[in-house]
Amino acid sequence: MTTEQEALPGPDAAGDDAAIVEEARRWWRTDIIDVRPGEIALRGYPIEQLIGNAGFVDTIWLMVRGELPAPAEAALFEAALVASVDHGPQAPSIAIARMATTCGVPVNGAMASAINVLDDIHGGPGQQCMELYLEIDREVDEPGDLEDAVRTVLARHRAAGVRYIPGFGHRWHPLDPRTPRLLSLVDDAVADGVVEGRFARIGRAVEDEIARGRPKRIPMNVDGVTAVIYCELGLTPELGRGVFILARSVGILAHTVEQMAQGGRIKGPMPKSIGYTYTGPARRSVPGARDERRSSS
Amino acid sequence: MTTEQEALPGPDAAGDDAAIVEEARRWWRTDIIDVRPGEIALRGYPIEQLIGNAGFVDTIWLMVRGELPAPAEAALFEAALVASVDHGPQAPSIAIARMATTCGVPVNGAMASAINVLDDIHGGPGQQCMELYLEIDREVDEPGDLEDAVRTVLARHRAAGVRYIPGFGHRWHPLDPRTPRLLSLVDDAVADGVVEGRFARIGRAVEDEIARGRPKRIPMNVDGVTAVIYCELGLTPELGRGVFILARSVGILAHTVEQMAQGGRIKGPMPKSIGYTYTGPARRSVPGARDERRSSS
Amino acid sequence: MTTEQEALPGPDAAGDDAAIVEEARRWWRTDIIDVRPGEIALRGYPIEQLIGNAGFVDTIWLMVRGELPAPAEAALFEAALVASVDHGPQAPSIAIARMATTCGVPVNGAMASAINVLDDIHGGPGQQCMELYLEIDREVDEPGDLEDAVRTVLARHRAAGVRYIPGFGHRWHPLDPRTPRLLSLVDDAVADGVVEGRFARIGRAVEDEIARGRPKRIPMNVDGVTAVIYCELGLTPELGRGVFILARSVGILAHTVEQMAQGGRIKGPMPKSIGYTYTGPARRSVPGARDERRSSS
Amino acid sequence: MTTEQEALPGPDAAGDDAAIVEEARRWWRTDIIDVRPGEIALRGYPIEQLIGNAGFVDTIWLMVRGELPAPAEAALFEAALVASVDHGPQAPSIAIARMATTCGVPVNGAMASAINVLDDIHGGPGQQCMELYLEIDREVDEPGDLEDAVRTVLARHRAAGVRYIPGFGHRWHPLDPRTPRLLSLVDDAVADGVVEGRFARIGRAVEDEIARGRPKRIPMNVDGVTAVIYCELGLTPELGRGVFILARSVGILAHTVEQMAQGGRIKGPMPKSIGYTYTGPARRSVPGARDERRSSS
Repeated sequence: MTTEQEALPGPDAAGDDAAIVEEARRWWRTDIIDVRPGEIALRGYPIEQLIGNAGFVDTIWLMVRGELPAPAEAALFEAALVASVDHGPQAPSIAIARMATTCGVPVNGAMASAINVLDDIHGGPGQQCMELYLEIDREVDEPGDLEDAVRTVLARHRAAGVRYIPGFGHRWHPLDPRTPRLLSLVDDAVADGVVEGRFARIGRAVEDEIARGRPKRIPMNVDGVTAVIYCELGLTPELGRGVFILARSVGILAHTVEQMAQGGRIKGPMPKSIGYTYTGPARRSVPGARDERRSSS
Repeated sequence: MTTEQEALPGPDAAGDDAAIVEEARRWWRTDIIDVRPGEIALRGYPIEQLIGNAGFVDTIWLMVRGELPAPAEAALFEAALVASVDHGPQAPSIAIARMATTCGVPVNGAMASAINVLDDIHGGPGQQCMELYLEIDREVDEPGDLEDAVRTVLARHRAAGVRYIPGFGHRWHPLDPRTPRLLSLVDDAVADGVVEGRFARIGRAVEDEIARGRPKRIPMNVDGVTAVIYCELGLTPELGRGVFILARSVGILAHTVEQMAQGGRIKGPMPKSIGYTYTGPARRSVPGARDERRSSS
Repeated sequence: MTTEQEALPGPDAAGDDAAIVEEARRWWRTDIIDVRPGEIALRGYPIEQLIGNAGFVDTIWLMVRGELPAPAEAALFEAALVASVDHGPQAPSIAIARMATTCGVPVNGAMASAINVLDDIHGGPGQQCMELYLEIDREVDEPGDLEDAVRTVLARHRAAGVRYIPGFGHRWHPLDPRTPRLLSLVDDAVADGVVEGRFARIGRAVEDEIARGRPKRIPMNVDGVTAVIYCELGLTPELGRGVFILARSVGILAHTVEQMAQGGRIKGPMPKSIGYTYTGPARRSVPGARDERRSSS
Repeated sequence: MTTEQEALPGPDAAGDDAAIVEEARRWWRTDIIDVRPGEIALRGYPIEQLIGNAGFVDTIWLMVRGELPAPAEAALFEAALVASVDHGPQAPSIAIARMATTCGVPVNGAMASAINVLDDIHGGPGQQCMELYLEIDREVDEPGDLEDAVRTVLARHRAAGVRYIPGFGHRWHPLDPRTPRLLSLVDDAVADGVVEGRFARIGRAVEDEIARGRPKRIPMNVDGVTAVIYCELGLTPELGRGVFILARSVGILAHTVEQMAQGGRIKGPMPKSIGYTYTGPARRSVPGARDERRSSS
């Protein structure tokens, strides 16, 4: 175990001007983009070749993965993006964008305040579900024992105090309308050899395990099924959250622009007629203060 | 008129390594803080001397103004800060902090999403009111004509299409309880020679002018009176917004921490039982799509 | 001219419970999305029909415009999005995302801090260029006088103190490699009757006018040419900024994830060996403070 | 273990209008502030009594703790706030505020982007150090065994893979100049009976334990000593991070305003003469694309 202090290079790690310049040049290093006067290349591809030849979804994939996708991979990825663009103005992220707009914030600021809250609870379940599937996948060591692996991993999470299984059940939908459609696209992609189908099996096995001993099934939701897709396509869990954010940004933008058109100034979460409940101490005096109300002009 | 391209130094502005290092060293320049190994000085004062000797309000003033304040200046400034810490969970900034917290965002993120919306409409009226007072002050050219200057400036704003006079009237309070108390502290400070009183006169003259020909007065609100104080103390309008943000951050933090204690997951702006109103097109089919609901599993 | 106070409904605007519920239900109104148990429709289209049938770019258009685009419109729009995804780690937005990541911020937070700065100067020139083109378009009142309209509008901006013509010239590129490629796609779209070509003519006329009397041309940059495309496609300037943000979010995400993989803790803008320049007052003592350094342990 | 779906009340939890209004009124509940027409009370105290009678630091404490502090408590708290206001433009948070400003972001937005990154690594060590001290405090079960408790807890962290001990060592300072001064104020407060001194002993014992078997001590830094103070004063770790953010906001504001005065447009992390290092693939062609450079106008 160490400390911040020790983790650092000594004070004379960089000696003369040339060494300083060299260190500075390497301070920001990237595999993603090469910009020179009159030239821009993304992952090695000249931008003027990508424009008009590569689609936006292909370019997203290229930027975050390093290579252009096969068309069938891009199509499955695209379906997951389309499914995730919006879930309405009751979602905190969307409500925040709309409220921000009425405070005078421009579109970038409204989007920033909104995207910022797509954190562990609001934007994270897809990522967490990917982590769950990957943990189950590592637990499976031979064909046929998928059911055991699911049971073992869920028990482990339960023992660690986890209260929610990410990716299953939905507070609005008895059956999330996005799930069967996306699952059927995954099944098609498996049939066509585009993806393996390992994570579709894992997702369904988790749903079966949750259902055991319950009166009704708790079906996979949009997080659970996009997690299947992103795992099948080889995205990391962090990227899973990232691409969800890209998709939801579309809804955030649409609501921001709609609220701008509707107008409104300093629009709170609900009408003034409702207000809020004060639950704190009754009125009391500041020690040593006269009754200022009376004494002041 | 020029373009971005011309505004730039030529490509060989920095020649050799020494010149590059010199340019880099001057890239970030500050009058505020000097940090060397084992030493920190703020505006020239060693940090270990400030700690325990200068108050937090003195230090705020030192950091943003460059010098330590006189005690009576600090006291007036402090009263304005205290007055601005909170205005309840109906304000978008506070509601955003609380909603953000239920999305899994830590305290820094909740505060950031909230502070971000203290923009032109929600956090800006104090700044705009300072600009108004300063414009009136520039318009006044001899003693006695304050009333004319106010009339001229308000007419100019009206002609320019301005719809709201910042700093006057309040959507919740017939009389803002912070105003008379703060004004009386300003009057005391004028009596004691701490400040001149020029902006207190301007603020009151604006209130009088607004009242002309109306059945009842539209009194100065907290933005209008803190604008008086900040102008008296010589802050720029931009700093006026900045110190308001520092003050309101206290309320934002308090509400963030309270919401963390209350719990809640993905708490929307209002209960699910209320929902929202959909005003868009009726259900329609995507051209070329089969009825996917039926065909999918 | 009015005040915040008067702009509000009277205190009894909402009377009984039914009226309050009605007001609350209409507090958030949207044309964009209709969510009911088991159903989600975007602009009237069931989500399960959009998934797999509408592309991501079509869905962006649908969300922000209200209708699905024609394929040729979507293709031109898509080219502009692809062109805008990244411009490297020297751009403040990208550098901020990377620095944020090394502070422990998750992907949503890094993206939020970065997107937030795509404001008037960094993300706004495309929007401002659209406003310029639209102003010129309104100025043109008969065929042939485009040149006069451009001269009039630029002179008006110059007179108003505008220093930079948004959309022309580039601090890195003598000729922005994205411009000729995008312009040629616009020309193809004009030839095919997809768009009218009015704004392509305006953009080129602005470039000609800027060149008048200068030794070399200041060519249109990516902001200027995407502004042509977005105007041709009928987007508002605000949406222009919004879709630029969607596109640049792809680069921001890619750099965020790359920095996470590279590691680093609290990575500042440049190496410690460079530091910064302190330009403030020399060391001085806090009045009334003993030399704390000596007196403390 | 459950799911999101089950955690929710049934669809008819709120029945008629009165029940909906009641639910909505209780949606936002707070102990902090009571706002009524013409009245504002913070934790029960009328705002007009707080203004001019309670200091800003008292008010921060009142807002986050619920009661006004004793003067000696406020003084110790204030010293910790003063110590934390800034650490220079090399810190990512400060650099981000300055860069944001040059992108056209107003003061609220620059502060938001900056505060947002005071996350686990950049703003969290104080909080983590408080958690460490509190864990040690729980481990100590009788007088005298502090040393054992420290050893046990540090070993536990080491075994859990923790690499850095928060609060000790500093990447710039061999000895953080804020530490001895703040520690001596804590010692004074212990001598005066203001605080107990339990956490000062714990902090010093951690420093001793880290030193064991090393050639030189790794001294407590500002996070470690403010963690002592905040623990002595009974703040929760989350509040510890929160008040650090309040303090550092002062520096963020000062640097934001200074950068506004300096000007600059789209100022990157370092000068263009330095650039960055591209480490990705060499130039390659987009499959199926002609050489667009050549073919386009």
